[in-house]
Amino acid sequence: MPKISIKGQKMPESPIRKLVPYAENAKKRGLNVFHLNIGQPDIKTPSVALDAVRNNDIEVLAYARSEGSETYREKLAAYYKKHNINISAQDIIVTTGGSEALLFTLGSITDFGDEIIIPEPFYANYNGFSIANGIKILPIVSTIDDGFSLPKIEEFEKLITPKTRAILICNPGNPTGYLYSKEEIEKLKTLVLKYDLFLIADEVYREFIYDGHQHHSVLSETGIDQNAIMIDSVSKRYSMCGARIGCIVSRNKEIIQATLKFAQARLSPPTYALIASEAALETPQNYFDEVTEEYVDRRNTLVSELNKISGLKVSTPKGAFYCIAELPIDDADDFAQWMLESFNDKGETVMVAPASGFYSTKGSGKNQIRIAYVLNKKSLIRSVELIKLALEQYKN
Amino acid sequence: MPKISIKGQKMPESPIRKLVPYAENAKKRGLNVFHLNIGQPDIKTPSVALDAVRNNDIEVLAYARSEGSETYREKLAAYYKKHNINISAQDIIVTTGGSEALLFTLGSITDFGDEIIIPEPFYANYNGFSIANGIKILPIVSTIDDGFSLPKIEEFEKLITPKTRAILICNPGNPTGYLYSKEEIEKLKTLVLKYDLFLIADEVYREFIYDGHQHHSVLSETGIDQNAIMIDSVSKRYSMCGARIGCIVSRNKEIIQATLKFAQARLSPPTYALIASEAALETPQNYFDEVTEEYVDRRNTLVSELNKISGLKVSTPKGAFYCIAELPIDDADDFAQWMLESFNDKGETVMVAPASGFYSTKGSGKNQIRIAYVLNKKSLIRSVELIKLALEQYKN
Repeated sequence: MPKISIKGQKMPESPIRKLVPYAENAKKRGLNVFHLNIGQPDIKTPSVALDAVRNNDIEVLAYARSEGSETYREKLAAYYKKHNINISAQDIIVTTGGSEALLFTLGSITDFGDEIIIPEPFYANYNGFSIANGIKILPIVSTIDDGFSLPKIEEFEKLITPKTRAILICNPGNPTGYLYSKEEIEKLKTLVLKYDLFLIADEVYREFIYDGHQHHSVLSETGIDQNAIMIDSVSKRYSMCGARIGCIVSRNKEIIQATLKFAQARLSPPTYALIASEAALETPQNYFDEVTEEYVDRRNTLVSELNKISGLKVSTPKGAFYCIAELPIDDADDFAQWMLESFNDKGETVMVAPASGFYSTKGSGKNQIRIAYVLNKKSLIRSVELIKLALEQYKN
Repeated sequence: MPKISIKGQKMPESPIRKLVPYAENAKKRGLNVFHLNIGQPDIKTPSVALDAVRNNDIEVLAYARSEGSETYREKLAAYYKKHNINISAQDIIVTTGGSEALLFTLGSITDFGDEIIIPEPFYANYNGFSIANGIKILPIVSTIDDGFSLPKIEEFEKLITPKTRAILICNPGNPTGYLYSKEEIEKLKTLVLKYDLFLIADEVYREFIYDGHQHHSVLSETGIDQNAIMIDSVSKRYSMCGARIGCIVSRNKEIIQATLKFAQARLSPPTYALIASEAALETPQNYFDEVTEEYVDRRNTLVSELNKISGLKVSTPKGAFYCIAELPIDDADDFAQWMLESFNDKGETVMVAPASGFYSTKGSGKNQIRIAYVLNKKSLIRSVELIKLALEQYKN
């Protein structure tokens, strides 16, 4: 039998997927499972986007331009201008989701055996994109006690070798909800200029910033035009995860040229999703205001409820819709599985994402979970109550 | 300035793209350009697919399952059964186009520096997927004089090394239109079993088979369940290239497991396109009958018109909608560009794809072009007339 490749063997299973069969079994046993494990919001997609697809008059569902149409990219550039990011349509390659944007970016800037540095905990699928590209992730731990702020620059410098190609950040962060400050971005700027590295910022949660904080994009920073690459996606912004439209944005012409060739090889982003994404740019501001209000409300509820659990530690997120909670137990993987397999209160239980899957350093985050606050307030309150009851039972 | 990777530099530009600026200039000068260069059919997408998307009642455009829904995969399995391919839903991973299917398949079975063997001329984007995966294509020339039939098995054996992972064929072929016989598939079967290789068959043109020939899938062959991987796509079958839905099909559980992990890392295929693709399976048989009739008519017209050009050689395609023509000149790249830059007859000219881009062996196919017969009969007749006139002028 011919062999699967090392890449094929190494591709990690998503940290959440491992628990899916247990959740399915729990449902088969008649339990109601609250899903705090996934980044699929319950927020409605803007009707302007949905209607554009319903009212399409396509007769031949043809290829779109590999890099996205001129009009869509021009409208995107106008959107970014409103967010203090001055770029032009020529600086954008439209991709099939933020996933493809990362895959093509890493493909364009790394060769087999190269390294990238990522503060951890980080979005678990960065592992998959790295393995697909045959490269190694060097993690630097950020801690819950420091609110997951940027690790010391000396820690980055310790890891830099001739094989280091880039530093990758997620801002605001999944799974931490941390928002990097302008000062932190500037520290990274000095670093990448000193060592001639790329700075890749995954900014797909840009619209979800709370408490009057300001998002500071890598592309708003001057002097790193050749180093800065921004990854974006419509998935979270417009609650249209199923569209699969993202983009790569950079003022570095070589990056755009190289990623364009990856885009051309796969021919076209999905045409229907492009229609929805272009129309979504007309979403009125009050949509975002309402969504932000809703998330702030959920976050406040979640954090205050979690803080009632003795021995639990939680870092208040400044953006996105995730938070990391440290539990007063040793093994959150086991606990998460146990909640699905052996626990229920009045026929209800909770599914959370064990945080160990978001760390690259073995053994890190073993007592942490990631909670996505993508459910309504009432469900969140009940979910935290269930976690509290489960912890009490589990510890006995 | 940080460096683009070797992969990033090596990614080839599509052989067709190079000519696009010349075609755009020709149009700016007011010329009517007949496009024989692209695989974008003018055939209408089945209304059953288009209507399903128009009538969707989505409120939250959510992620789909990474591997495609159970129902879609079950219906796909039923579709394959009708084509003498007995597989189950569990043998299918739904992908974002045939492109992603190839990318994930090569990722799952190859490591950096591995090799795959492909009869040439072959679909140019196989180069891009290989470079993205850091692997090398070893080509074997098939010739126009043999109608692009399978090269001798001894030729394959000469190229096999410990690094060889797979043989990749396109059946029926883009750019040749050649349809491999059952005997040829069986020869490949013996070969891959002997050397423990994968046999990947890109069968996206399965529905386009002419003159009463039968398509013989690698998955209809017994005894190579662990070796055979089929790549498919809805793009050409239902003239919905912009949907971006394809799939990987194999009875090898390890392959399905490995490609699933690639699919999970990118989360989801595009949801709207899945709706269209699932509905497209209800396309009535007379749609395919009419389309086949149309293509046969076009092919017959094209080939008989081309044969009127003195010194031109053409291989009659048995499937798909491409053919390779050998021109009585030395440099078809130059000729194709010249037709767009310096030639017109009554304000009209033609864009063709120089075939050199479909060969991996340097210098091969220099006097050949690929013609896609995706235009109506009248346009085809005029296009060939233009090629004829252009050749006469060009030679002087």
